[in-house]
Amino acid sequence: MIDRDDIMEAHLFRHACKVFDSQKKISPEDFEAILEAGRLSPSSFGFEPWRFLVVQDMQMRQRLLPLVWGAQRILPTASHFVVILARKGDSMRYDSDYIMHMMRDVHRLSEESAKMRREKFEKFQREDFRLLDSERALFDWSCKQCYIALANMMSTASMLGIDSCAVEGFVGDEIESMAPELFGYDSREFGVAVMVAFGYRIEAPKPKTRQKMEDIVEWYPQR
Amino acid sequence: MIDRDDIMEAHLFRHACKVFDSQKKISPEDFEAILEAGRLSPSSFGFEPWRFLVVQDMQMRQRLLPLVWGAQRILPTASHFVVILARKGDSMRYDSDYIMHMMRDVHRLSEESAKMRREKFEKFQREDFRLLDSERALFDWSCKQCYIALANMMSTASMLGIDSCAVEGFVGDEIESMAPELFGYDSREFGVAVMVAFGYRIEAPKPKTRQKMEDIVEWYPQR
Repeated sequence: MIDRDDIMEAHLFRHACKVFDSQKKISPEDFEAILEAGRLSPSSFGFEPWRFLVVQDMQMRQRLLPLVWGAQRILPTASHFVVILARKGDSMRYDSDYIMHMMRDVHRLSEESAKMRREKFEKFQREDFRLLDSERALFDWSCKQCYIALANMMSTASMLGIDSCAVEGFVGDEIESMAPELFGYDSREFGVAVMVAFGYRIEAPKPKTRQKMEDIVEWYPQR
Repeated sequence: MIDRDDIMEAHLFRHACKVFDSQKKISPEDFEAILEAGRLSPSSFGFEPWRFLVVQDMQMRQRLLPLVWGAQRILPTASHFVVILARKGDSMRYDSDYIMHMMRDVHRLSEESAKMRREKFEKFQREDFRLLDSERALFDWSCKQCYIALANMMSTASMLGIDSCAVEGFVGDEIESMAPELFGYDSREFGVAVMVAFGYRIEAPKPKTRQKMEDIVEWYPQR
């Protein structure tokens, strides 16, 4: 158990850090903990539709630069830069090899349980969430799971005194045509969900702005 | 700063808790911290497209029951149950009153800065992310931000020794036709993104299963 005030301090410490101290590197142990927070994240049906690309090659970061919004100061200075890929297309359908692999080899379900679970998953994808209506709907649902991992990586960083910045603003089509070749992944199987930089701040953050608690929370029954 | 081992312990502690001890209630201070973790979460452009409905009315939970998958034991036993709404439709377009309100009254931008930011946001929505192509694409993007808040609420809970379970499996159409009337929100402005239960476990969790680190992480250059 962790002290409540320490947790809150970490959430307040976190801000969108737009430039890092390029001289300060995150220790291997701390960065491993950040990745582990991503790996241990929950996901729908436990299907972990993510992949984390750790881009430490500065020439690769240079090639990303024109495709990533406002990252002119982030990419060259971040200690670690992670591209989070989300599974897409056939690889996330209820009847894919990947889903069978997850159920058999990772969840270690029996053939019988895997079959039942696949039926439930088909109903979820086809009827309840209508994820099979379009390629985009299925990919966006996969991305949502990646945002859980993203959040856990950033909050774990902040608890370790490490700054971060999520990078959502990239040029969709161009990144999709360039990234698979750059990183060597199959564009039929994965797409870029979001990116995130980690490192140490050199500037004081702007004061945090948020809506008031009473503007975003409703209690039933009312308090 | 928080000890790395304590953080990892909390991530390992968290599991999808499918039934809670109905006798144990989360203290107001701890639950406030969970909500605060949601409130302080980052979001795209800082637009916080979420709302948290805390459903403590047991009759309301009863009415949700047929629309929520596998929540037969969750809903009646959870100490606290939260429905996370995501903004949708016109309310999340670059030219909405809500976006102007956020920039003026929350971010406290000058008229000049707000105008420039709105132009950037329009380009992001219209061209780069093509969020205006369909109602669903815009809503899904809004939902992604809500998954950040979801993750931060769950991990904050686990650090306080509190269990949780995200509930994504609900019947989309039926919940959309029923929830606005039940909770009194405007269905043109909000939709259900995801739900999450909090409380205390009574059963030992199943062993955690995950893909191996080397199966989900790539380093550039290779290590």
